[in-house]
Amino acid sequence: MHKKLTVDLGHRSYPIYIGGGLLARADVLTPHLPGQQLMVVTNETVAAAYLPILRETLASRALDVCLIPDGEQYKTLATYAQVIDQLMSSRHNRTTTLLALGGGVVGDITGFAAATYQRGVGFVQVPTTLLAQVDSSVGGKTGVNHPAGKNMLGAFYQPGCVLIDTDVLNSLPEREFSAGLAEVIKYGLIWDREFFSWLESNVQALRAKDQQALVLAIKKSCEIKAVVVAQDEREKGLRAILNFGHTFGHALEKLTDYTRYLHGEAVAIGMVMAADLSRRMGLLGEHDVERTKRLLHAAGLPVCVDQDMNAEDMLRTMGMDKKVVDGVLRLILIDAIGSARIVDQVDTEHLGETLCSSS
Amino acid sequence: MHKKLTVDLGHRSYPIYIGGGLLARADVLTPHLPGQQLMVVTNETVAAAYLPILRETLASRALDVCLIPDGEQYKTLATYAQVIDQLMSSRHNRTTTLLALGGGVVGDITGFAAATYQRGVGFVQVPTTLLAQVDSSVGGKTGVNHPAGKNMLGAFYQPGCVLIDTDVLNSLPEREFSAGLAEVIKYGLIWDREFFSWLESNVQALRAKDQQALVLAIKKSCEIKAVVVAQDEREKGLRAILNFGHTFGHALEKLTDYTRYLHGEAVAIGMVMAADLSRRMGLLGEHDVERTKRLLHAAGLPVCVDQDMNAEDMLRTMGMDKKVVDGVLRLILIDAIGSARIVDQVDTEHLGETLCSSS
Repeated sequence: MHKKLTVDLGHRSYPIYIGGGLLARADVLTPHLPGQQLMVVTNETVAAAYLPILRETLASRALDVCLIPDGEQYKTLATYAQVIDQLMSSRHNRTTTLLALGGGVVGDITGFAAATYQRGVGFVQVPTTLLAQVDSSVGGKTGVNHPAGKNMLGAFYQPGCVLIDTDVLNSLPEREFSAGLAEVIKYGLIWDREFFSWLESNVQALRAKDQQALVLAIKKSCEIKAVVVAQDEREKGLRAILNFGHTFGHALEKLTDYTRYLHGEAVAIGMVMAADLSRRMGLLGEHDVERTKRLLHAAGLPVCVDQDMNAEDMLRTMGMDKKVVDGVLRLILIDAIGSARIVDQVDTEHLGETLCSSS
Repeated sequence: MHKKLTVDLGHRSYPIYIGGGLLARADVLTPHLPGQQLMVVTNETVAAAYLPILRETLASRALDVCLIPDGEQYKTLATYAQVIDQLMSSRHNRTTTLLALGGGVVGDITGFAAATYQRGVGFVQVPTTLLAQVDSSVGGKTGVNHPAGKNMLGAFYQPGCVLIDTDVLNSLPEREFSAGLAEVIKYGLIWDREFFSWLESNVQALRAKDQQALVLAIKKSCEIKAVVVAQDEREKGLRAILNFGHTFGHALEKLTDYTRYLHGEAVAIGMVMAADLSRRMGLLGEHDVERTKRLLHAAGLPVCVDQDMNAEDMLRTMGMDKKVVDGVLRLILIDAIGSARIVDQVDTEHLGETLCSSS
């Protein structure tokens, strides 16, 4: 049995399927692959684990495979160009579909390639990490990094469907699984106090890969993201709350050359910073900050930076973040667990205190 | 006095202003530049001619200028990356606007950069060639070429406005002016028999840069393109008729490494080929083929290829064209002057005859 959600975006609405064993379900997948051509974009590690299942599921079709290098440092215009080159050399036309089989990097690059190859072709997401399942595969943000900043190039481009097979999480390294939980916890923090409480009670069941708990947590996460995205697809307002902890997190990742922290780990630290800043600005009680730290820690995540982080470097790096509107630093804060708010005039003194106390 | 048209695309509708002296009209331009940041993308030749006027018009604003190399051979991912690099190094944020000052290459690259920088920023088109004024600046197609094919990477992205100053045509080289007339004549061929007749009577006035004739011809061309685009923004059907002559033309350009023909010249030859094929397939009378050739010739355009063009090479090159749907060659033909039709099953024997008779 699997669950089905719909992301409601008018004529670009699409379904998200969530459940065990979905990779083997041709009846679910093939209706979303209308043309004759199909290119699976993935990396060697994921291909070794799941490409055989997918080949069997899609046995009746010709399947091109594009292997891209693994890792955030390869989420570049050069890797994007590699995907495009293979589409060209294999003569894919504008009725082709690109299937992203992998984590967020694979999904983001593949989505950007699908959005721009011949100005837009078919696109299906099959996320194989928890982070990609609850975050990057939902909502239509695609893109690559620039040497000077994360996700600086990209497009809003919605997939035809997202297929989330929870079985793949059994072979996911524990550190990556925890990184995915950071985004799950984020949904509780910004949107749903009850879900946050449920996570406090079920975090160990999730880490033990209890299937029922997993499906519920993923479905709830996708639901919250889908509701937010449906209200504000292009991030003119509300959608920005999904960036809770991310301005701090992106700066941390950048200052450590995207090598020290997994994205979810940097976001976990960033959410603690955002909660701490919320407290210093008088929005949030001490108790809620502690609950936030405790749950993230229980999920196997870091809650503070290594001691060699420089607060000045963080401030400067945050200044180039995409969330800057005409010179004013905008941050997402929370005024309670389950309630986010966009703050346009962040108190820089309090921000400095937060950064100093975190390093 | 200037004319104003609206391209009707719901909440993404935008105005096209057409007239003499518009580059100096701050009252027309500035309402379309809402943010504090602005980057003009142009090339050295155009900058020398028109950047001083634009600087004066926008004297009250900080103006970044990005100079890109001139020519279709530079409409590449590398030049796109150059624009992005400068946006990053000058710290442009997501409220910035990119203003394309130049011909089709500048407009297409700038539009693609605007579509994808931080997943979409402001975009204004100020086309400085007749071709860009009547074709590429209207309709939202943006992108760059791939070594293996024209316009293979890109996005549909609508500008905030298009500003067409007809005065700039006075300094346009005659060959480029004629290349622009090819697209003007195309609108008559595919959509408006009366406009075609008007062009037959006024082609010399146009070539003499008669302002009244120019404004009328540009306005009519933009109107026809706007109506077609409004009905089919993403080229699912009708919009394909705007490619009349282009499948042939693109192949010609590619086989000559984009150096021998201007785009409009290749399209002129392509339209003669498409008219010839229409006749061979029994759709069009000999007289209309002759009128087509005669008007293109009167506009200063070539109507047949150089003798070393190989029909086999053309066929193969056309096979990789974007207009191929699941292996079937789709072409735009005309069944009368002023009436286009999309033909999915082109008779390859007749196509071969057309190509052999043209070379």
